[in-house]
Amino acid sequence: MQFNALTPALVSAFEQIVTPAHVLTAATAEAQQYEAYGRDHTEDFHFAPDVVLRPATVEEVSAIMKLCHEHQVPVTARGAGTGLSGGALPIHNGVVLSMERFNKILKIDERNLQAIVEPGVVTEAFQNAVKEVGLFYPPDPASKGSCFLGGNLSQSSGGPKAVKYGTTRDYVLNLQVVLPTGEIIWTGANTLKNATGYNLTQLMVGSEGTLGIITKAVFRLLPYPQHNILMLVPFRQEAQAAEAVSAVFRAGIIPSGMEFMEREAIAWSSDYLKIPLTLPEDITAHLLIELDGRDLDELYKEAEQVYEVLEKYDVGEILLADTAGQKDDLWKIRRNIGNSVRYNSVYKEEDTVVPRAELPTLLKGVKEIGARYGFKSVCYGHAGDGNMHVNIIRGELTDEEWNVGLRQPISEIFQLCVKLGGTISGEHGIGLVQKPYMHIALAEANLNIMRGIKQVFDPKGILNPGKIF
Amino acid sequence: MQFNALTPALVSAFEQIVTPAHVLTAATAEAQQYEAYGRDHTEDFHFAPDVVLRPATVEEVSAIMKLCHEHQVPVTARGAGTGLSGGALPIHNGVVLSMERFNKILKIDERNLQAIVEPGVVTEAFQNAVKEVGLFYPPDPASKGSCFLGGNLSQSSGGPKAVKYGTTRDYVLNLQVVLPTGEIIWTGANTLKNATGYNLTQLMVGSEGTLGIITKAVFRLLPYPQHNILMLVPFRQEAQAAEAVSAVFRAGIIPSGMEFMEREAIAWSSDYLKIPLTLPEDITAHLLIELDGRDLDELYKEAEQVYEVLEKYDVGEILLADTAGQKDDLWKIRRNIGNSVRYNSVYKEEDTVVPRAELPTLLKGVKEIGARYGFKSVCYGHAGDGNMHVNIIRGELTDEEWNVGLRQPISEIFQLCVKLGGTISGEHGIGLVQKPYMHIALAEANLNIMRGIKQVFDPKGILNPGKIF
Repeated sequence: MQFNALTPALVSAFEQIVTPAHVLTAATAEAQQYEAYGRDHTEDFHFAPDVVLRPATVEEVSAIMKLCHEHQVPVTARGAGTGLSGGALPIHNGVVLSMERFNKILKIDERNLQAIVEPGVVTEAFQNAVKEVGLFYPPDPASKGSCFLGGNLSQSSGGPKAVKYGTTRDYVLNLQVVLPTGEIIWTGANTLKNATGYNLTQLMVGSEGTLGIITKAVFRLLPYPQHNILMLVPFRQEAQAAEAVSAVFRAGIIPSGMEFMEREAIAWSSDYLKIPLTLPEDITAHLLIELDGRDLDELYKEAEQVYEVLEKYDVGEILLADTAGQKDDLWKIRRNIGNSVRYNSVYKEEDTVVPRAELPTLLKGVKEIGARYGFKSVCYGHAGDGNMHVNIIRGELTDEEWNVGLRQPISEIFQLCVKLGGTISGEHGIGLVQKPYMHIALAEANLNIMRGIKQVFDPKGILNPGKIF
Repeated sequence: MQFNALTPALVSAFEQIVTPAHVLTAATAEAQQYEAYGRDHTEDFHFAPDVVLRPATVEEVSAIMKLCHEHQVPVTARGAGTGLSGGALPIHNGVVLSMERFNKILKIDERNLQAIVEPGVVTEAFQNAVKEVGLFYPPDPASKGSCFLGGNLSQSSGGPKAVKYGTTRDYVLNLQVVLPTGEIIWTGANTLKNATGYNLTQLMVGSEGTLGIITKAVFRLLPYPQHNILMLVPFRQEAQAAEAVSAVFRAGIIPSGMEFMEREAIAWSSDYLKIPLTLPEDITAHLLIELDGRDLDELYKEAEQVYEVLEKYDVGEILLADTAGQKDDLWKIRRNIGNSVRYNSVYKEEDTVVPRAELPTLLKGVKEIGARYGFKSVCYGHAGDGNMHVNIIRGELTDEEWNVGLRQPISEIFQLCVKLGGTISGEHGIGLVQKPYMHIALAEANLNIMRGIKQVFDPKGILNPGKIF
């Protein structure tokens, strides 16, 4: 794909559209701020945009897209930059379209249990706003305190509650999208069901900014579940922790959280947060299990059933969180594993996913591959979904080992996922870093169809070029 | 689109692929049987196929598609023929590809709460099979006793339980699909989450046989909810029945069924089934409300809360179903409304859908439009989803009034749906009969994208031509 360079005339035209205050270039912007627009949370990558635009209305986005389409300039949409697959990195430079000013919750419709939001709203801020009126928006990626709903939509984000409530995909009803030509469409309707033509809404979700720019989203909401119970279950054998996951579901229980953490994951995170946690020496892994619902008595009954299931395994003392503060601490530890790993070392995060009963086999395979190729990994994640984040620690690896040598073992990890019925990303997307491994998960015929769809939406290939395939 | 006629050589080639026993033509097949392949449950339409093929393996489907692609012969896939939008009608003749021999449940995976099935399995048979091992497949269209899972996938079918559990779309993880060229792909992975490229699985669901032929499906399953409570609530004012729907959700309750039935819907169906039901004269509508869960005490508490909500409305005596037999009868009445209407008259069924709180306005509008244009309608449906089936009764309407005169009032009904945030089909699909109204729901830009996607999958346009757009 050939792109054109940015011209001073184009920059002037952008200034006309969004005002000069929202057109940033290396020459005019504060260096540290500008540099940040070229990064996300993926390893230590940086790619410099030619210009950063910060529109605030759909009309501005449309006008920008029309110009970029006409002049064949690449456009990479950007949310909060918390992505873990490099989706927001402008690898062909051009325009970074920051959606940070699309930060309004436009409507919380209590009659219909729906909300209309802009894509630059922080996920947790949205959750808090709907909770105030007794409603619940479940998707909660670890970065929920800073990530944007638009990024969640683009990457099909999940989080711990997905095991019971599904991912971002399961809450979106309708999207307003600006196409590369500048045309503005709504992808569906504000209804719980829709059998009116191809599902463009679901096609947009997870398309990582390669098909169009999301400017509004309609989400469905649930009544807020008033009660929850949280327990931390220590295991003496990692494989048993992974096995217990399936056993809980098989007992008829659908937890609202079912998180797996290797010993090091939980140790690093509690150290990083300075939240003291006693870890007996023989404990190798934990499950964090949450139950939620409308009735506390019913939850205690369910908790007893969970205990009965766990009795069959070699577990340590189960910690039942007593207070809201204790629950917060446990979730904080879980959510900050990624940050604590990043604090300790540069790392690569592989977002493996398999049918949940295959987790023990996957975990064993990852460790075996690591031993064979000489790297250390910290594993944790959404065990109820079979979604395990494998953090490969750089440690003492050389540049060569890190940049090239790891390709083979990572391929082997992904081949194992696929062999077990899984795939190479559960919730982080493909972006830049998983792209070389797509052929492991998908046949050439699938990739050709995806390329064909891309061509239908974006014939000049200007949207987030070089990502996914 | 130009298609080629079937040649004797092609028929011979088909006989080679599926054996002569499974190649039916008007010349060789029993007349009544052959005629049935040209019908579904949509009004009284009939279109004759040139040939009916009944393959049993993916390889046979692939070989058939290769031939049809090469010779540019139309192929219309067919499930059980229970569709209500004409999706299975071979309007350009050619091949009807009957999937009736794809009738095996290949695997029920109790460890992972998943199943692999062929598309010709009857929905209820699948539900029963998984229930035997304590598992639950919720989607249950009214025709569940005869419809196929493949048809449910193609039309994005719902049913009463969708209000709590979602539609067919929400249970499919992965699909094996034969493309028009004969290539065989899997659209995704057998995982609960997947962020690996564009979501081809969700694109296939609801694509009505226009993109590929589904030959296997992987569904996720839930633990079977052991208990349920069913109540029939009579209302003296239709609008109040529609209003009460939102109030129940707003009270924090998510019923597993929330069905609306006009007086005539319930009266016709109970007459048709010869199940006696006392209907006081002042009752104009009913809600059928089901609650389900793991704990009966909890359900009774919820039922009390539902009663509290209903006290605010002018309701008659609530019937709480006491026995399994009584529950079955009530559901049978609900499920047979369509059959009873069909028994009474030719009818057109409009599958309207709006945000649920807009139902009273939609219902009022439909009646007002009917009064203005002189037609009678029977309305019922999945009120919890805002999905109301409007059955327009032919009664004494002339051919001209029926075939042409109704277009304007139907357009007005759909315009009202869209104005209320809804669309023109909730779960029946567009097929043949809703096609003229697509421009009401979708912009030309949306339709162009859909046409483009069709072109990517099916460049020669041989799959179910003339449907959707």
